[in-house]
Amino acid sequence: MALPMRSRRSLAKPRRPRGRRTRQAILRKAVAIASLEGLEGLTLGKLSSALHISKSGLFAHFGSKEELQCSAVEAARDIFVEEVIRPSTARRGLRRLRALCEHWFRYAETRVFPGGCFFAAACLEFDDRPGKVRDRIVELMKQWLTLLESTVREAQKAGEVRADVDARQIAFEIHSLATGANWRSRLFKDRAAFSTARRAVLERIKQIGKAERRRR
Amino acid sequence: MALPMRSRRSLAKPRRPRGRRTRQAILRKAVAIASLEGLEGLTLGKLSSALHISKSGLFAHFGSKEELQCSAVEAARDIFVEEVIRPSTARRGLRRLRALCEHWFRYAETRVFPGGCFFAAACLEFDDRPGKVRDRIVELMKQWLTLLESTVREAQKAGEVRADVDARQIAFEIHSLATGANWRSRLFKDRAAFSTARRAVLERIKQIGKAERRRR
Repeated sequence: MALPMRSRRSLAKPRRPRGRRTRQAILRKAVAIASLEGLEGLTLGKLSSALHISKSGLFAHFGSKEELQCSAVEAARDIFVEEVIRPSTARRGLRRLRALCEHWFRYAETRVFPGGCFFAAACLEFDDRPGKVRDRIVELMKQWLTLLESTVREAQKAGEVRADVDARQIAFEIHSLATGANWRSRLFKDRAAFSTARRAVLERIKQIGKAERRRR
Repeated sequence: MALPMRSRRSLAKPRRPRGRRTRQAILRKAVAIASLEGLEGLTLGKLSSALHISKSGLFAHFGSKEELQCSAVEAARDIFVEEVIRPSTARRGLRRLRALCEHWFRYAETRVFPGGCFFAAACLEFDDRPGKVRDRIVELMKQWLTLLESTVREAQKAGEVRADVDARQIAFEIHSLATGANWRSRLFKDRAAFSTARRAVLERIKQIGKAERRRR
């Protein structure tokens, strides 16, 4: 399974340092705007006035709105990898699963993106808008769910998790509880939503562990 | 606790039968459009061309876009009550909780609203748009979560559910798993998402039952 660690961008030809730094600064702002107003709300006009850069200057970096949206998705992915995935790579099996969840909750609670989880919002915005942006979002979400699933499988192979546990189902449950917390915190302005969900996720992980008595 | 059975609309002055039927037909169409294109995509212009009614004719029913959106939310609520809540009212305790969940899954799977769960979409669309529409959506979602929670409490009082179970937490978990299925079915075009979530929900309900061995 491919970890969601490799960026498509890394395959492009290397940019000169200054151009790359400018592009990174633009993309940080783009991701912040998109997390608050949606990827559709991310226009070259809005970004140019937020950054005091001319539209033509932005155009040199991103030829079109779709290109800008795709680049913002990649930038958000890079941040997600740094915040959630990379800090968990040193661990294995159940410890890794717990670390991934803990880091996800920290990422959502501390508002790494000002508008809450970037991907939760992007998924709902693009679930019925065919095109390159949707395709990439779907791909990244599948990678995230596959990472959770393969981590459960790894724990199963190591004898930490019962053999009858459906790894795909557990990945779905963890993801649903986490995004449910994001939903609740945004709709009800209820920050306690994350501790409710964290408790549910950690309890579920405990249940699938081998030390746990088998449920009928 | 107030069941989400009473409509605000019922407090308004009674309309003449023909006017009411026209209004109902308009609202059915409005809800269908909103479920596919969002409540913001529901304009008087779009609705008038879909129904071949003049804009001024629509204006007589709904004075503004916000009024139309609020009326669509009420109409969607009425449908939700008919499809999910009313068929479960005859049961009590855990049977009622199971019935509510089963009817929710049937409602989502059979696409009562063509664009999937109306409320899942509306929540995300309005989670940061202050105003009457958001207020009403928040109120309805709280009523739904409170109904799930009070049903767990009822089962607790009847001795069907362990006393140490946190009813509010269970309501959150059920809701998250259900909306997680809605999310997955829409993003991945994966209809099996509902059976995955149904399995998770029924297993969770089984776990909180008293017949179940107590988990440490």
